[in-house]
Amino acid sequence: MKVLEGGISNIAGFSSLGKNIGIKTKAYDFAVLYSDKRCKAVAVYTQNAIKGAPLYVTMDHLQDHMAQAIVVSSGNANVTTGQQGLDNAYKTTELVAAELGIGQQDVLVASTGVIGVQLPFEKIESGTKGIKQELAQESNFAEAIMTTDTFKKEICVEGDGFKIAGAAKGSGMIEPNMATMLAFLVTDADINTEQLQTALKTSVDQSFNMTSVDTDTSTSDNVVLLSNQQVKNIDITKFQEALDHVCLELTKMIARDGEGATKLIVCDVVGAKTAADAKKIAKSVISSPLVKTAIYGNDPNWGRIMMALGKSGAEAINPASISILINQMPTVENGEVNESYKAEVLSEILRSAQEILITIDMGVGSASATAYGCDMSEQYIKINADYTT
Amino acid sequence: MKVLEGGISNIAGFSSLGKNIGIKTKAYDFAVLYSDKRCKAVAVYTQNAIKGAPLYVTMDHLQDHMAQAIVVSSGNANVTTGQQGLDNAYKTTELVAAELGIGQQDVLVASTGVIGVQLPFEKIESGTKGIKQELAQESNFAEAIMTTDTFKKEICVEGDGFKIAGAAKGSGMIEPNMATMLAFLVTDADINTEQLQTALKTSVDQSFNMTSVDTDTSTSDNVVLLSNQQVKNIDITKFQEALDHVCLELTKMIARDGEGATKLIVCDVVGAKTAADAKKIAKSVISSPLVKTAIYGNDPNWGRIMMALGKSGAEAINPASISILINQMPTVENGEVNESYKAEVLSEILRSAQEILITIDMGVGSASATAYGCDMSEQYIKINADYTT
Repeated sequence: MKVLEGGISNIAGFSSLGKNIGIKTKAYDFAVLYSDKRCKAVAVYTQNAIKGAPLYVTMDHLQDHMAQAIVVSSGNANVTTGQQGLDNAYKTTELVAAELGIGQQDVLVASTGVIGVQLPFEKIESGTKGIKQELAQESNFAEAIMTTDTFKKEICVEGDGFKIAGAAKGSGMIEPNMATMLAFLVTDADINTEQLQTALKTSVDQSFNMTSVDTDTSTSDNVVLLSNQQVKNIDITKFQEALDHVCLELTKMIARDGEGATKLIVCDVVGAKTAADAKKIAKSVISSPLVKTAIYGNDPNWGRIMMALGKSGAEAINPASISILINQMPTVENGEVNESYKAEVLSEILRSAQEILITIDMGVGSASATAYGCDMSEQYIKINADYTT
Repeated sequence: MKVLEGGISNIAGFSSLGKNIGIKTKAYDFAVLYSDKRCKAVAVYTQNAIKGAPLYVTMDHLQDHMAQAIVVSSGNANVTTGQQGLDNAYKTTELVAAELGIGQQDVLVASTGVIGVQLPFEKIESGTKGIKQELAQESNFAEAIMTTDTFKKEICVEGDGFKIAGAAKGSGMIEPNMATMLAFLVTDADINTEQLQTALKTSVDQSFNMTSVDTDTSTSDNVVLLSNQQVKNIDITKFQEALDHVCLELTKMIARDGEGATKLIVCDVVGAKTAADAKKIAKSVISSPLVKTAIYGNDPNWGRIMMALGKSGAEAINPASISILINQMPTVENGEVNESYKAEVLSEILRSAQEILITIDMGVGSASATAYGCDMSEQYIKINADYTT
């Protein structure tokens, strides 16, 4: 497996565009991804019980597991907008399908932005005119799906003859809104739909689903994977490995770029009794506001990690068997402070690192899990206390 | 039921003290509560799997459901301190018992502060000398259990011949540490131990257990209720009502005084399918960083409330039946924006209120629950990103 420069432009048969259509003042707010051929398509969606209208349309259009284009708008999430919102999402796919000369059923739609306000549909209407001519191999797609993201998030890997590429946005907001995570993945690997869905679910469970910026689950999150099926006879193990890498790297980019974040936090849990316990503990640690603020302040307050794992709800926790390392420095060993531990040394380690690795050995089994997050600064509050209006 | 001025000093037979013994530089860091008579005693403890040494000692000493004194120290939580920490906690009760001339088994102990550092035991040792002479009906007890609390938290109510009083601390830290909640309640009502335990559990489930400042669960939280049994023939219904009031008012004081908080947030959920659903929804809303930052910023972003209830994990959520009022102003009605809703009016309502009441009607049943929290400001980050060292 090899990592290539750039993102989705590496994969022949896909083209895209990114531009401003006036939902936002100046920034890009509209993006389209298009495949020459109809693609096998699978997706995973937010677990939030309140879902945006575009998600319902995408779920409907993916009933046949085929798609040829994705349209993304930002500035308005089209959530809690009732029948009119649903009609607008369907109409968006209808307009895009007509311009591209493809079936409406083959167009997926995603929106991100403020909740509870109707989509400015006339802007979508005029924005879609002439999009077929604007599609290009190289485009601003990855930039156009960004909101308060501070860098674009894309990746491409080459496997055994096949490629997988992806673009994601996350941890940003538009006119203050929740940290919304969208990822669009494309591949030329021909794999049957069921295997494709399983592979995506497997990768997402270990990557996007193991990250948290602020514990708030968006109403619009989704990850879509399109395959234009140009490369046959795929080794599914190698495909899974490549897909895992793509999802994990995009996840880390999202965590690192969390609202107001200055550091990536990775929590590796080993020695847990069950996989479920390992996941709960890893997520509890990277989600704890007190762990996040301590790391922001280079505060060697590992007691908060003990607190966070203790409140995780994991079934098997034996305080006397827990060991914790922070960037390889032993702090707790078998439930007590390690003899070599020095707070001022840990503080220096924290100060100089951009990436904090918290390794927790629970000492009660052999299950493991890793979670990805970021620290929490005053900037997070500033970004999210602003006006929607 | 009548609310009296002051706190535990209202109840004859109890005396207390609060002073500095040098764990902290200047602030009070040591408090003792004492009863002339042995009391029936019940308690509830933190759910965190990592518990402080003092909690184990208190649990041990409460096996007989009797106690006569409580000793509280702050500046050091005595958590993750191994056998030495446990020995120190037991020795503290031994010293206090000897000074007061009572049984060691009748002394309870609580500590709050930094984790993973051994207690400066020589300070406890010299601090306990002569405490019997320092006990008084009126004392600095409520002040002495404060840490970064900005006001003291005490209350007393008079029921049908009996009284219940309490002092609590919460949402503060010492040398940055987690928001630790301690509450000590005393009464003269004579009720059997089993009923007393049930009454306390009932009150705590609706009050302390329904509050969150930052979703982090302390390793040292506990609530203790002592009864010196001076008033007989208690109507248990009236006692429960009075105890509910005491716990709820202390809970609101703790929420209002959350680290960096500027506003109290109360979330009333009605029309839920089950009581468990109602609790999950109410707690999810008051715990959401995006709801908390929006309220801090007077941002009329009720979409975040929809997001927070959607992610609550409640079983029965029908988006089309949800209605939300904020300080009585309708925002969402049956899943869509209320026609009379104006963002600028809501913003003004938020700006002028110190107490934000979010009322959510789920429209799928008749269960209800209320949760208590606070907004989240830059000050929360500042307080918690400081050094432990």
